[in-house]
Amino acid sequence: MNVSDRAACIALDRSDPLGPLRERFALPPGLIYLDGNSLGPPATGSADRARAFVEEEWGPHLVGGWNVDGWLDLPLRLGARVAPLVGAHPDEVVVCDSTSVNLYKLLHAACALRPDRRVIVAADDDFPTDRYLVDAVATQRGCSVRWVDPAVLSPADLAAAAVFVCSHVHYRTARLHDMAGLTARCHAAGALALWDVSHSVGALPVALDACAVDLAVGCTYKFLNGGPGAPAFAYVARAHHDALANPIAGWLGHAAPFAFESAYRPSPGVGRLVAGTPSVLAFAALGAALDAFTGVDLSACAHKSARLSTVFTARIAAALGDELTGVSPTDPNERGSHVALRHAAGYPIVQALIDRGVICDFREPDVLRFGFAPLYLRYVDAFDAAEILIDVMRSGAWRAPRFAERAAVT
Amino acid sequence: MNVSDRAACIALDRSDPLGPLRERFALPPGLIYLDGNSLGPPATGSADRARAFVEEEWGPHLVGGWNVDGWLDLPLRLGARVAPLVGAHPDEVVVCDSTSVNLYKLLHAACALRPDRRVIVAADDDFPTDRYLVDAVATQRGCSVRWVDPAVLSPADLAAAAVFVCSHVHYRTARLHDMAGLTARCHAAGALALWDVSHSVGALPVALDACAVDLAVGCTYKFLNGGPGAPAFAYVARAHHDALANPIAGWLGHAAPFAFESAYRPSPGVGRLVAGTPSVLAFAALGAALDAFTGVDLSACAHKSARLSTVFTARIAAALGDELTGVSPTDPNERGSHVALRHAAGYPIVQALIDRGVICDFREPDVLRFGFAPLYLRYVDAFDAAEILIDVMRSGAWRAPRFAERAAVT
Repeated sequence: MNVSDRAACIALDRSDPLGPLRERFALPPGLIYLDGNSLGPPATGSADRARAFVEEEWGPHLVGGWNVDGWLDLPLRLGARVAPLVGAHPDEVVVCDSTSVNLYKLLHAACALRPDRRVIVAADDDFPTDRYLVDAVATQRGCSVRWVDPAVLSPADLAAAAVFVCSHVHYRTARLHDMAGLTARCHAAGALALWDVSHSVGALPVALDACAVDLAVGCTYKFLNGGPGAPAFAYVARAHHDALANPIAGWLGHAAPFAFESAYRPSPGVGRLVAGTPSVLAFAALGAALDAFTGVDLSACAHKSARLSTVFTARIAAALGDELTGVSPTDPNERGSHVALRHAAGYPIVQALIDRGVICDFREPDVLRFGFAPLYLRYVDAFDAAEILIDVMRSGAWRAPRFAERAAVT
Repeated sequence: MNVSDRAACIALDRSDPLGPLRERFALPPGLIYLDGNSLGPPATGSADRARAFVEEEWGPHLVGGWNVDGWLDLPLRLGARVAPLVGAHPDEVVVCDSTSVNLYKLLHAACALRPDRRVIVAADDDFPTDRYLVDAVATQRGCSVRWVDPAVLSPADLAAAAVFVCSHVHYRTARLHDMAGLTARCHAAGALALWDVSHSVGALPVALDACAVDLAVGCTYKFLNGGPGAPAFAYVARAHHDALANPIAGWLGHAAPFAFESAYRPSPGVGRLVAGTPSVLAFAALGAALDAFTGVDLSACAHKSARLSTVFTARIAAALGDELTGVSPTDPNERGSHVALRHAAGYPIVQALIDRGVICDFREPDVLRFGFAPLYLRYVDAFDAAEILIDVMRSGAWRAPRFAERAAVT
């Protein structure tokens, strides 16, 4: 691949089997959107689906919509649609609440499934909400936490572990962890494996069943494009369906919510992870986003994503190798769908890129993240983004005082 | 009030100061909607607000929307808009998650505020999710539960109580509990008071601050018309802001979420109750619903609601007194905005009413509920609904086999 050649990128786009998928998204003109790993764009049907939900379901059917429009089943119905994207059976996934709330439930549930084991083993340096919730649940259950580098997870680390918790793709470095190998290591030591697939789902194949994963959570507003704060999902392997306990024993996780029984009796299967009433409007928008995955081959997504990021990183390494340090694995098979670079002036550089129409983001203290969502990005986008970054660095445009202004972090 | 006279009801509607508010809602023609206590209708602006959020915020601004559209502040900004509806300071209310999840958080938080007290005292026969969560949290904290009839709550009941939990208006009977008196009784005994205002907020004045309530939760899809499963809210009195602990220590409740600190450090005030990322689309729709409360006097709402339900109940009592037993308090000052009747054939009677365009609901085992939302119902609606119920009963129309068909409650 001749990455110094824009025409070659245009040719790649012409022959890209995923190229036509870009039409499924409502992208603003003139932008190169390299932040789909943080928040995906709307699908072309998202706005109309939201409007239609209000005007064609809620408005005319009112309370009857729970039955005639099937709102009550949405957590399981959408779960069944997410399932193939994470390599799960349709009855192993439920959509509800936020990733944080689902992680909280599953951490408690995992500890309850291994009551004789008093340690939570968790990936150090993971996304903050994962770390905060591991700490919180450990305290609540009288467990200790062992923070580990997943790359060197040992049987000794897992000896007393109820559960090992890890992000499939690291939010900052994009490192892709060995889900099959680490899960097997957990099982050999008697621990459960709980994966957060927020930064992999929708960008590359996730194989929860094939990897024998016990529990997982994931986000739908990154590569799944469900909209900011869209409902998250939880996965529970069938083997755990009967024993799993949801600490947040809300009425919609009850086996018969409308029987108004005096005592909680969990719904069979993953439905018990539902707690309160889900936002049906948010589910409607998520449904439109999942439509964009119809017929999409996730292996092809992973392949394209790796090539997109390679176009970008190879050009940057050649032109700016000394200035911007690579943070992500250099082998695209070892990383997710974004790449991270490091620079002491990361914040103003990102602002200067945004000013030039390249939307990426900054993560404290010095990381620039560039996401390469394979469904709507073109090779020429990756090429142009690299050229603009090179120009921003060589021209010193990022030094303009306006790019340094930022809100104080308190 | 001559309740046997339809013309008098039409005259009441003509002079009703709240009458014009009906124009703020998108109600389907030909229905009498007496189930706003379960799910309110869309406001006229709801559909467009949802569409506009996608097309004018998320679509063009993408990840930048968190800042330029102020999405991150929505839990506190909408909380400040709910606050006057519950008699709270703007900084005492936050909108996030579901009522169930918020109740879970505040039950844990209440117990943590009174660690030397090992009992949760809760209203017996309350809404199922409240009962289930009281049981769950008590088990998780090693506390016991004392179920009480709030009407006869005694100092002995509260002697070892960390917290007393009660719905302001009972979901089935509509009984309005004495928030000020019961809260004072709790405080005299050293307990906290946690109120669920789901069935009162938006229909009558709620005075959390004036009643010295410690904690409260509420639903926004009943009388607040936020849409099915709209985000719920939580109230924390200022006195507890510093000490309150959210068990679900998610990253957006952190004092500096984007500093990505390694340890959880709660946001000041009620913002710490946020856990994961909120559904911005759902918040947008809720914003449109709250617009419908602009300039609304909640005392006038309570007054109208009482008169509406009295038109209905007086007519029913006169015509059907022997057949349908009243479940709600007869004094409208002692009930919320709905009334409940009891009949062994409650289910088919409700189906026959729905078939005639009177939308009400059935609650196991034998209760018919009729909601009188004061913002969009007319006196003539209450009158006509009573006439139709009388006709359904006298004609025996409810005995048609099709009205008896129902899904098995498992």
